Amino acid sequence: MNLEIPTRFAERDWERAVDGGPVRFAVVGLGWFGRDVALPAIEDSEYCEATAVVSGSAEKASSVAEERGLDAALTYEEYADGEHAEAYDAVYVVTPNALHLPHVETAASLGKDVLCEKPLEATGERAERVVEVCEEAGVQLMTAYRMQTTRSVRWVREQVRAGVIGDPVQFTGEFSFNMLAGGGDPDQWRLDPDLAGGGALMDVGVYPLNTARFVLDADPVAVHATAIENPPAFDGVDEHVAFTLAFPDDVTAQCSASYGASGANHMTIVGTEGRITVDPVFDVDADRQITIARDHGETTVDVAEPPEMVEEFDFFATAVLGERDIGPDGEHGLLDLRVAEAVYESSDEGRRVDL
Amino acid sequence: MNLEIPTRFAERDWERAVDGGPVRFAVVGLGWFGRDVALPAIEDSEYCEATAVVSGSAEKASSVAEERGLDAALTYEEYADGEHAEAYDAVYVVTPNALHLPHVETAASLGKDVLCEKPLEATGERAERVVEVCEEAGVQLMTAYRMQTTRSVRWVREQVRAGVIGDPVQFTGEFSFNMLAGGGDPDQWRLDPDLAGGGALMDVGVYPLNTARFVLDADPVAVHATAIENPPAFDGVDEHVAFTLAFPDDVTAQCSASYGASGANHMTIVGTEGRITVDPVFDVDADRQITIARDHGETTVDVAEPPEMVEEFDFFATAVLGERDIGPDGEHGLLDLRVAEAVYESSDEGRRVDL
Repeated sequence: MNLEIPTRFAERDWERAVDGGPVRFAVVGLGWFGRDVALPAIEDSEYCEATAVVSGSAEKASSVAEERGLDAALTYEEYADGEHAEAYDAVYVVTPNALHLPHVETAASLGKDVLCEKPLEATGERAERVVEVCEEAGVQLMTAYRMQTTRSVRWVREQVRAGVIGDPVQFTGEFSFNMLAGGGDPDQWRLDPDLAGGGALMDVGVYPLNTARFVLDADPVAVHATAIENPPAFDGVDEHVAFTLAFPDDVTAQCSASYGASGANHMTIVGTEGRITVDPVFDVDADRQITIARDHGETTVDVAEPPEMVEEFDFFATAVLGERDIGPDGEHGLLDLRVAEAVYESSDEGRRVDL
Repeated sequence: MNLEIPTRFAERDWERAVDGGPVRFAVVGLGWFGRDVALPAIEDSEYCEATAVVSGSAEKASSVAEERGLDAALTYEEYADGEHAEAYDAVYVVTPNALHLPHVETAASLGKDVLCEKPLEATGERAERVVEVCEEAGVQLMTAYRMQTTRSVRWVREQVRAGVIGDPVQFTGEFSFNMLAGGGDPDQWRLDPDLAGGGALMDVGVYPLNTARFVLDADPVAVHATAIENPPAFDGVDEHVAFTLAFPDDVTAQCSASYGASGANHMTIVGTEGRITVDPVFDVDADRQITIARDHGETTVDVAEPPEMVEEFDFFATAVLGERDIGPDGEHGLLDLRVAEAVYESSDEGRRVDL
């Protein structure tokens, strides 16, 4: 095995020929990510088209629809009433976490496939409902874990699978930023425990958590954790969290996340015969740098790859068009909520929690 | 504050003028580290001289003494009997962990100051005795944590203290190697629970543990941990360990160590306004690379510094000659044994252990 790392990732390893399309999307939620990242990505995609936007604000919906030349601008209420449902085939839900369930319920009742942002909901119980309503309605549900469709991360996973670093032993992942520095809004929904379901863990901590599951191709069996609130700014939500996941075959993952630390986002997988680091890794369209170190050498490469939300939308769309099962599905996303609840339980009770 | 990182560390920030010397050392234990690292370092030092060597094997003691032109070659028994005690002023103990106590007892009874390798002993109880016998005899005791006298690591600590990364939030440290790959000896004392007191944690895990304490300038208040044995090779000793330390002021440290993973040794301190990474950091005379990242820039520098065991011996010797208290003293080293015992207790019982 050589140490070569591609500097460009030209292949979509998941791509299959499909008939039909494009998949016409309603984007539900017009915050920064929906408006400035997701909508342009849908425009740039091969198999998708944005045709409707849905917002709590009629004005915002109209202005974005006009800006993008879309067919339908809907309020949450109009969307819930099924207005202009003929204009779209699938729904991308990118609202505050605790609003995912009602919007998914609407989509399911309308027979629309669903791409739902992470975490799937604010609690495990509500996430379970998200999964159930989609199953009952027979619509597809994908949890929108960007890392799982990002080419470089998929490539890293393939190296781990191929044994390039031997057997995995330890995963380390950290994702933090300083939310309130430089005028960050202390009233944002991410700091509202009812809307978010938690703090740094629910927003950024799920990245190392889910990416550990993805690159190790396994699910954790136990967790121990320390989650730290810091009132008044972080009241009822964790500002910092540090948790350790036990995976089968004696593999452990140490993950941390923070709303109160300088920007850090990296992961390392150490195996019996080498290690792979990606730094930065988790932020959207990060300028990823991959290092592979083995006994007799180390290689570091700056990689280039297409915008990852384009990848994610096309991944979802081709699965829907090809009637194939979708990679990180609802059950997969639900498990992260179970782990998150176990993290908080472990921290509160000071004990390891089995999953 | 600028981002400049020195590429050379010309200063000994701890150095003070002293009278007398050199401090004449008996090196007790002639394994790889004692023979090939410590003895040459003493020769290269400014304030120390090696005058005696002590080994379980009379032949090895004689051949090393001859090779180095030393005055005294002693067996463990001759050393315990105080033979040639006039030939040395201080003792450097670098034997298997569970032999530290008797050798320190001898040194104390002879009125010799002691530099004792880490961990201080194989158990907390025995480490406590090490501290007591030195106190009772009125001799100095330093726990030989290389990192605390390594110039680059001391410099990093100063940056943290000076607020270069704001307030520390999270420490991450990992030290692992594949002990049995490539013909490693499965019968070595480090795999004997009675001699070592534990596995990867006791040997390499104490590096991230103690270095976290050092750079954060604080002691942990609680720990949760997962330690994994893997019989038959790792029976009664941990092959892998992952532990999280809670420090005051909501700072956490995630540390891992392994005897069964490819070489990894690095640390990162993330603060409210930046982060510092040293990679590699923990192996002896590592080619350290320091990265400091803050909001508006990142700098990485390969640093050069003197052999660190030379630094450590001179640090010890000038404290002894100057009759000053010694940085990482016996109590400091004892605390790591308390933490190590708490790590194993946490792992066995599946709960957070307060310290």
